[in-house]
Amino acid sequence: MADEPIRVTVWGEGRHEKRDVNVASHYPDGMHATIASGITEYAGAAVAVRCVTLDDPDQGLPASLLASTDVLTWWGHIAHDEVSDDLVDRVQEAVLAGMGLVVLHSGHWSKIFKRLMGTSCALRWRNGDDRELVWTVDPAHPVAAGVPSPIEIPSQEMYGEFFDIPAPDELVFVSSFTGGEVFRSGCAWRRGRGRIFYFSPGDQDYPVYHHPDVRRVLANAAVWAAPAGPRSTTPIAYAAPDWFVTP
Amino acid sequence: MADEPIRVTVWGEGRHEKRDVNVASHYPDGMHATIASGITEYAGAAVAVRCVTLDDPDQGLPASLLASTDVLTWWGHIAHDEVSDDLVDRVQEAVLAGMGLVVLHSGHWSKIFKRLMGTSCALRWRNGDDRELVWTVDPAHPVAAGVPSPIEIPSQEMYGEFFDIPAPDELVFVSSFTGGEVFRSGCAWRRGRGRIFYFSPGDQDYPVYHHPDVRRVLANAAVWAAPAGPRSTTPIAYAAPDWFVTP
Amino acid sequence: MADEPIRVTVWGEGRHEKRDVNVASHYPDGMHATIASGITEYAGAAVAVRCVTLDDPDQGLPASLLASTDVLTWWGHIAHDEVSDDLVDRVQEAVLAGMGLVVLHSGHWSKIFKRLMGTSCALRWRNGDDRELVWTVDPAHPVAAGVPSPIEIPSQEMYGEFFDIPAPDELVFVSSFTGGEVFRSGCAWRRGRGRIFYFSPGDQDYPVYHHPDVRRVLANAAVWAAPAGPRSTTPIAYAAPDWFVTP
Amino acid sequence: MADEPIRVTVWGEGRHEKRDVNVASHYPDGMHATIASGITEYAGAAVAVRCVTLDDPDQGLPASLLASTDVLTWWGHIAHDEVSDDLVDRVQEAVLAGMGLVVLHSGHWSKIFKRLMGTSCALRWRNGDDRELVWTVDPAHPVAAGVPSPIEIPSQEMYGEFFDIPAPDELVFVSSFTGGEVFRSGCAWRRGRGRIFYFSPGDQDYPVYHHPDVRRVLANAAVWAAPAGPRSTTPIAYAAPDWFVTP
Repeated sequence: MADEPIRVTVWGEGRHEKRDVNVASHYPDGMHATIASGITEYAGAAVAVRCVTLDDPDQGLPASLLASTDVLTWWGHIAHDEVSDDLVDRVQEAVLAGMGLVVLHSGHWSKIFKRLMGTSCALRWRNGDDRELVWTVDPAHPVAAGVPSPIEIPSQEMYGEFFDIPAPDELVFVSSFTGGEVFRSGCAWRRGRGRIFYFSPGDQDYPVYHHPDVRRVLANAAVWAAPAGPRSTTPIAYAAPDWFVTP
Repeated sequence: MADEPIRVTVWGEGRHEKRDVNVASHYPDGMHATIASGITEYAGAAVAVRCVTLDDPDQGLPASLLASTDVLTWWGHIAHDEVSDDLVDRVQEAVLAGMGLVVLHSGHWSKIFKRLMGTSCALRWRNGDDRELVWTVDPAHPVAAGVPSPIEIPSQEMYGEFFDIPAPDELVFVSSFTGGEVFRSGCAWRRGRGRIFYFSPGDQDYPVYHHPDVRRVLANAAVWAAPAGPRSTTPIAYAAPDWFVTP
Repeated sequence: MADEPIRVTVWGEGRHEKRDVNVASHYPDGMHATIASGITEYAGAAVAVRCVTLDDPDQGLPASLLASTDVLTWWGHIAHDEVSDDLVDRVQEAVLAGMGLVVLHSGHWSKIFKRLMGTSCALRWRNGDDRELVWTVDPAHPVAAGVPSPIEIPSQEMYGEFFDIPAPDELVFVSSFTGGEVFRSGCAWRRGRGRIFYFSPGDQDYPVYHHPDVRRVLANAAVWAAPAGPRSTTPIAYAAPDWFVTP
Repeated sequence: MADEPIRVTVWGEGRHEKRDVNVASHYPDGMHATIASGITEYAGAAVAVRCVTLDDPDQGLPASLLASTDVLTWWGHIAHDEVSDDLVDRVQEAVLAGMGLVVLHSGHWSKIFKRLMGTSCALRWRNGDDRELVWTVDPAHPVAAGVPSPIEIPSQEMYGEFFDIPAPDELVFVSSFTGGEVFRSGCAWRRGRGRIFYFSPGDQDYPVYHHPDVRRVLANAAVWAAPAGPRSTTPIAYAAPDWFVTP
């Protein structure tokens, strides 16, 4: 992995930007473009980033692109239901075979995240211009490298507990909000051969993906989620009596 | 829970017993009947056990029965695909709301287990009359209470690693086999408000569910998986600015 | 455990009450007495509670008492260094053999907690009359039963991250404070055959242990930490070639 | 870390080699020299490896050397008690501040491992020329990269469960032995800012550290345990009311 850049595909739903003036003003080229620029800005030559959106052919992820993606980032919100079950199947298969997945903000409610978690992924929310403070609870974790504790986000949607997810394999960030709510805002899981990171800051109504610390986390997460080797699936496998023999 | 017995529903696929003479000889009343008798034998008055099978109306689990089940046990093998997606949805919903689920042996490949795990749940196997030794790696866990380490099962199908599951929240048993293979054979997870236990001994070709130690584990698992309170779901919930106010 | 009450020993440092008028006004019989009354109030006949303090003979925990304790609760602050290493050895041994341990507030810095965690157990703090909100992040956990989310504590010392502990085996509560800080305030670990729960609310300068929800958590934790069976140690054990033989 | 090699210090007890002809025949330059050569063989320019032993000045680890060590490996057996408590204090402090630690075989019983785990670290054992098979249960873990599953070690001491350790944060390898025993033989923990890996193969009576797959695991573990940044301790820290202020 040291020699070849990590091939990151930024998947964006790409709908809010087209119909909400406020969102378009923050993200004139789409939220995905800003997410991609953040990853590139902080990961540099370690990554090669492409953007795709839901309205692209094959919903942005034809087989060939998915096969050549090391890490996929996912932001969606109002069109989760439009994502085809076939695509969800293919992304799940890719993750279990080793592809990294970084799920962002309202992506908690996407088909693919719920598929991989097995839980409802429901949470409490309020779009009320809260201040979010993102605290590091695992300071040596690579995803937390280089950011202050707390990261301060002046305006954000509130996401609060109970967040119905499997207990994370690694809990990295916990946020608090103006209303006093808390949220496990940076969570890592290993599923099959793939790594999954969920990072909650990033509502479309606020310019969160322009925040330098948030951008650094995006880059850290993309690098952290990169697979260590080629993809490999785990089939049901018959092991003959002599499959393993001591010479 | 101290006053009312835990309502355990034993779900059996019920197909092998009807067509395989060998299976029927071990389990003349069905594997489910033997599983149920094991739970009752060792949990006594703490449980009230019912049996249902795939070929019963509503595939054995009408809404009213599922609603009045505290812990569901699941054994299936050759008819996983016949289980309706609607039933899988309803069982998942019940587990996330608090119902316990005990998945047995080839149930690792059932729709409901794969749904709740989010992974392939694939493994390595060999039906070659292996001796299985079930070692306790968490001796204070309630599911391991009262059984020797190892439990010795003279004849069993081999299940071996890699077993593609999320890392268990609690690893209780690890088995070895005649061929030298190992397997995480007793695994616990918390999902939503429900508890899930997977216990691998129990192939239909061998009389495993007559083994006293195995029967005690079944009973322990049923009691351990029982919910602490009434079911409760976790919806996406809007939290108004004044939903929580310090007086 | 259903028949015999859980034998809970509440260990209190017992020094602040003797010299600080403010503390004595909240806890005229000692903090330990109030902690004990909370456990009894909410666990009822399930427990039998005794109190001891540092200034009692054998620092409150002679061998016979420790041997007959199912769950020990620990509150200390200004006299951690006075606790003898021999007592720490004996308590650690008891926990690993199955005794439950509930560590409260400034007990995070006690010798016994640091011994069992293996980390510094350091944290950030401010005694500034913060409001603490204690949120449940695992609503089905027995220790969270019956309390609202959040528990609101009007006045408390702030404890904030980074809290240098091993990642909890089960994370139950996360708190926020007036200053926006967050803290993993309810954490469970399994060590050896024993269960350990850390619950952070409870500074001596505020009447926290009179708060009904806090008292319920104390009771829940005491019941949760109770051992399932008699104590058992794990020695280095030689296993002869014929120690386990298939007949 | 990409530019500078990881500074690995191999600490060896160095006693068996001096008095046991059999051990000296396998390890004429000391076990530590063979461990070091394995790390260098498979990690190459990514590491810079030094060897020290118990009988060196300052028991091999003067403050300056410890301060310039990124990853420490530890093999000890018959002289655990000779290691000074002061050295244990210093190594623990270094690990919590970020230094990696790789504990090998009988090092499970060392003062430093017991200190960091908080448990007895006891296990079952038999020196009876067992065949050990080391199975990978987390195939995407960096420490398992490039080794077959199972690794076959023709002759080894048996280490068996119950192994009294905290549940690993990541379980990578599980071994089986000729006698049918199983053992969690590759375990990872995060403590403070440091990473700890325990790998059990490697008894002094067998030439295990000449085994190519074992050597690759040693190298993988050393690279995996390397810190991501400079050391940092976590003190008890007072946070003034105005320490964090939103502008």
